[in-house]
Amino acid sequence: MQIRQQLRSFANKVSVTRKGKERLIVNKMTSEFNREQLESVLKRRFFFAPAFDIYGGISGLYDYGPPGCAVQANVVDTWRKHFVLEEDMLEVDTTMLTPYEVLKTSGHVDKFADWMCRDLKSGEIFRADHLVEEVLEARLKGDKQARGITENPEEEAEKKKKKKNRKKKVKEIKAIKLDDQTVSEYEMIVAKIDGYSGEELGEFMEKYNICNPATGDPLDKPQQFNLMFETHIGPSGQIKGFLRPETAQGQFLNFEKLLDFNNEKMPFASAAIGKSFRNEISPRSGLLRVREFLMAEIEHYVDPDDKSHPKFHTVKDMTLDFLPRDLQEKGQTEPVKMTIGEAVSKKIVDNQTLGYFLGRIYLFLMKIGISPKKFRFRQHMANEMAHYAQDCWDGELLTSYGWIECVGCADRSAYDLTVHSRKTGEKLCVRETLAEPKIVEEFDCEIEKKKFGPKFRRDAPKVEKWLLSRSQVELEELAQELSSNGKIVARIPDTTVEEVEIPADFVKIKKMKKTVHVREYIPNVIEPSFGIGRIIYCLYEHSFWTRPEDSARAVLSFPPLVAPTKVLLVPLSNNATLQSTVKDVKEQLKAAKIPFKVDDSSASIGKRYARNDELGTPFGITIDFDSVKDNSVTLRERDSTKQVRGSLKEIIKAINEITYDSKSWDEGVKNLTPFESQTE
Amino acid sequence: MQIRQQLRSFANKVSVTRKGKERLIVNKMTSEFNREQLESVLKRRFFFAPAFDIYGGISGLYDYGPPGCAVQANVVDTWRKHFVLEEDMLEVDTTMLTPYEVLKTSGHVDKFADWMCRDLKSGEIFRADHLVEEVLEARLKGDKQARGITENPEEEAEKKKKKKNRKKKVKEIKAIKLDDQTVSEYEMIVAKIDGYSGEELGEFMEKYNICNPATGDPLDKPQQFNLMFETHIGPSGQIKGFLRPETAQGQFLNFEKLLDFNNEKMPFASAAIGKSFRNEISPRSGLLRVREFLMAEIEHYVDPDDKSHPKFHTVKDMTLDFLPRDLQEKGQTEPVKMTIGEAVSKKIVDNQTLGYFLGRIYLFLMKIGISPKKFRFRQHMANEMAHYAQDCWDGELLTSYGWIECVGCADRSAYDLTVHSRKTGEKLCVRETLAEPKIVEEFDCEIEKKKFGPKFRRDAPKVEKWLLSRSQVELEELAQELSSNGKIVARIPDTTVEEVEIPADFVKIKKMKKTVHVREYIPNVIEPSFGIGRIIYCLYEHSFWTRPEDSARAVLSFPPLVAPTKVLLVPLSNNATLQSTVKDVKEQLKAAKIPFKVDDSSASIGKRYARNDELGTPFGITIDFDSVKDNSVTLRERDSTKQVRGSLKEIIKAINEITYDSKSWDEGVKNLTPFESQTE
Repeated sequence: MQIRQQLRSFANKVSVTRKGKERLIVNKMTSEFNREQLESVLKRRFFFAPAFDIYGGISGLYDYGPPGCAVQANVVDTWRKHFVLEEDMLEVDTTMLTPYEVLKTSGHVDKFADWMCRDLKSGEIFRADHLVEEVLEARLKGDKQARGITENPEEEAEKKKKKKNRKKKVKEIKAIKLDDQTVSEYEMIVAKIDGYSGEELGEFMEKYNICNPATGDPLDKPQQFNLMFETHIGPSGQIKGFLRPETAQGQFLNFEKLLDFNNEKMPFASAAIGKSFRNEISPRSGLLRVREFLMAEIEHYVDPDDKSHPKFHTVKDMTLDFLPRDLQEKGQTEPVKMTIGEAVSKKIVDNQTLGYFLGRIYLFLMKIGISPKKFRFRQHMANEMAHYAQDCWDGELLTSYGWIECVGCADRSAYDLTVHSRKTGEKLCVRETLAEPKIVEEFDCEIEKKKFGPKFRRDAPKVEKWLLSRSQVELEELAQELSSNGKIVARIPDTTVEEVEIPADFVKIKKMKKTVHVREYIPNVIEPSFGIGRIIYCLYEHSFWTRPEDSARAVLSFPPLVAPTKVLLVPLSNNATLQSTVKDVKEQLKAAKIPFKVDDSSASIGKRYARNDELGTPFGITIDFDSVKDNSVTLRERDSTKQVRGSLKEIIKAINEITYDSKSWDEGVKNLTPFESQTE
Repeated sequence: MQIRQQLRSFANKVSVTRKGKERLIVNKMTSEFNREQLESVLKRRFFFAPAFDIYGGISGLYDYGPPGCAVQANVVDTWRKHFVLEEDMLEVDTTMLTPYEVLKTSGHVDKFADWMCRDLKSGEIFRADHLVEEVLEARLKGDKQARGITENPEEEAEKKKKKKNRKKKVKEIKAIKLDDQTVSEYEMIVAKIDGYSGEELGEFMEKYNICNPATGDPLDKPQQFNLMFETHIGPSGQIKGFLRPETAQGQFLNFEKLLDFNNEKMPFASAAIGKSFRNEISPRSGLLRVREFLMAEIEHYVDPDDKSHPKFHTVKDMTLDFLPRDLQEKGQTEPVKMTIGEAVSKKIVDNQTLGYFLGRIYLFLMKIGISPKKFRFRQHMANEMAHYAQDCWDGELLTSYGWIECVGCADRSAYDLTVHSRKTGEKLCVRETLAEPKIVEEFDCEIEKKKFGPKFRRDAPKVEKWLLSRSQVELEELAQELSSNGKIVARIPDTTVEEVEIPADFVKIKKMKKTVHVREYIPNVIEPSFGIGRIIYCLYEHSFWTRPEDSARAVLSFPPLVAPTKVLLVPLSNNATLQSTVKDVKEQLKAAKIPFKVDDSSASIGKRYARNDELGTPFGITIDFDSVKDNSVTLRERDSTKQVRGSLKEIIKAINEITYDSKSWDEGVKNLTPFESQTE
């Protein structure tokens, strides 16, 4: 309850303008959102810092200090309880080092790449899409200047703010008028910049004469740059490997063991929390685009013929903001509000399982303190989906950088299990005993086992296994090959020859009637995938405000569950009389397992609280001279600065209920006495 | 309490033979420890599996399945509470990707290496120390055969068992008699094999003609092979980096920010939990020697002049097994029992802070279920210490592979902070206000700032900073250089020239009397460092036994705190009558936040429990037809198979107290009714 109220109060800070372009506006309660101030608080309080700072830093790498690390641990813990424990998911911890072969099969070696172009003279490297966007935007701006059009100052300020953290490539705007045709071409390209191929970007660069903005030197054609970090495993340097770009592959490769662990029951999900890596070409946007990041991923395996979900009813009446593909294709950016039930029944969201996870994702984000008004689900356009995805909804959060993809919920269909199964010859499928046997006509493969050994020698088991693991479609093709060529010629992985020749008398492939007792299928995968670091950065923005009476007093209003520390213990003074009470309170808080910090510095109480408002500490306990007499203490709430008085036991009970049982402040302290403070 | 009792019961399984060579012996209560059986249980129940198994696996890389992953999460959680929360440590999360520069400075680029040698013909690679050891051992064995000496069969079996998991390089033992002198040389080398340099190993290989054991082909001289995984950061390939070999460097680089976060108070500790990497030459010993592993490391910063610890009294009376350096030098392998207080007062352990952490390490290991009889602290010999260590005690655990280093407690002195400070010019030190100002005579450096700009241009600030950050010893040297050469010539990092020449009239370095108000010092670092994966493997061995009545029934006796799941819920049958009670029990367990699993399969209750004994589930709740009537259930304890009956509420209370408040079983269930079962 209390969390919801907090969220609502934050929601007030945002207004939605027409065409869905949200922006932060001044609110009576708080001053305007100021990214520099937030970043200064986050760095000063060591939520994070550039990694290797004293060595000058490496862009895209950040360290989390104590409060950032604690927020991360609390978010991960909440995630684990909300998903893994609640749904009985099978959590695994798989390695980050991944051999070439696995990522070649999964498609990442060929397709997990961005386009970059190199200045042939200086060697400087640009990310092609970012460069094209920036150069064309600068020319459009120059055109406006030349035409004497002044931009809406508010929009202008907004744009400037958004770009403050980018390293600008284009330093100077030249007031040169463009012809109207060019203007509209530029505008079109900038609007669709995320969807172009390297070839297309190269064409634009040639057509519009895009060079190194600093020097005017020509650039090479866009080249694909694979975003995986490469390394070598073992001393011989022969095992090429990568740092994983996602945790998913490690989960897929263990599919058989997981299914077995789950007593062959379907559907089920595996989950993994761990670091993944992306060698970004030129990371910017601070914590939002980093080279090493924490992910939490779920792979939910489901029968492709039945994607219903037994708990769908628990989410179906939730109303969410959806921005489906067809709306975007029409140029619309305003999401549609509807219930998940409606979205599924209208096939906007493909199935119940996908819908169920959209609902659960939303609930999780609300639990950790994300603003509901700054959240939407946007469906991927056909050209922006990852190579493995059949459909994908992004959970996007609104920040001062714009809408940021923080959670993906993709339908990976049977893609990954199929390609790994094909490559390794291991069957990665579910065997379901049919209620009644069925008679079917199917291709069947009979092999003359005796002949294999003498002919294929060491390769014999691999050739056998390969033949016996072909799908129906493949068997049909092989049958045709046999009848027309009198043999099969095939590349079979890991054999000693490039091509294996299997004569017709070694194998018979025929359509036959069979009684089938078992249905075999490769499950589909629904994958909710969370970028924990991005979510945490958005949480910082959504939680940040300053006190109206003093804009230098910043507050991070984390829900107590997520706050790094729950309680700040503040002795009124360093007077010796208070010491034994302080010690007693510390011991009782420890026994109650409530994380706390003591601030016994000589600063004023107000100052001590202000410091901890910046750390997002939700509660303060003041120990004064009355505490020594009657064991009562004062409890302060961070956002309202309201205070109540009660016995330590009552206060601990209230803290526990508000923090871990989601009671609101008012509910939690309803039996305690309001306390007027002179301290703030 | 209950944990202690369990440990004691395990301790019974070990007897210590003379000369400290421990071995596992048959115990009346349990059958002999059988590593194959343990590994088969661990793989069958998916505690772990070789990573990329369906691709043939990569040695030294393993995945944790659901129970392994849960044990890991519980051990990490216990570690965090035992160390980070209890001692108010500052936890950080720093990146694994680390630039070359940092690890060059820390010494890892030059010194974090093993010796390998290559077969010049086949390219096969051997780890030099392992090869020399194995070849000489094989020759010694051949010598015994030739002399007609039969080995003690028990010792023989023991040796065989230890080596089962190694890939043997020497396949065949040849019965060739050696002369007595050679025998004693070989024995000496094998005994000290861990301490030789590459040159020494190369000399042995030449002197004793050690070749590729399989082919007899000659091997190249031992070469240093750096154990860090190398990669490149960014698209240009210019930023060379490594995957970190330890989390420590990330903590040291943030020292200033951490000290600031701690309000400049000393002593304090930072801590990090995360993966580190070692590119082992040829990993063996299963989970004990892996290429990617979870570490938990503490860097405790302490005043070099005062290494006392305020909580030392809490550990000083604990008696531990110590194997100090001087005993090992005398060839002794039997540890000495003494209290930590005694060890510190005799200077066997250098100081209170080191002693305090040895005690805390021991308590942590006991809490998670390590056997106290299979634990010792062994001090590093001078030649085996890491390049940064001044002193180091290893917490070693006894397994079927021998004594395994699982925790290191090193005194890194001021090594790391000093080298990073020198390299970057950032002062990484503590400033302590003196109670009274002191008058000292010190070298002081006065610079003619105006002259720097015109002469050094862009380098000016770096030259200035370099001069002003020299230590007293360095200033003395520079003063001499100035007076004898009339200038200073120095290599200054990151300047545009190779050597900077500073004329005498630019800088004055003189000894002067000064009133000092602040003492500046570089803190020393005491570093307890935990290999979580190794500890977990040892825990598996220490927890494993089989029921005397049936050696096929294996049990993993994890303490409830660490067990992957706390409760197995077992409905007596699938009869519909029981369903609503099952649902009710599930909801109440969920509300009580106790992790549980349901087994409603049709297997017998005994079989279902047997399955979960292998998973280490400490409690079973049986729901029968009486449960429907009176809401009572049966609670079963895994190790004793004892059962008690009570209301669900009472049972939940008992589970919580035994699991989280360390009550023993007898204490926890003392108010419940013993229950005779016919089910096992």
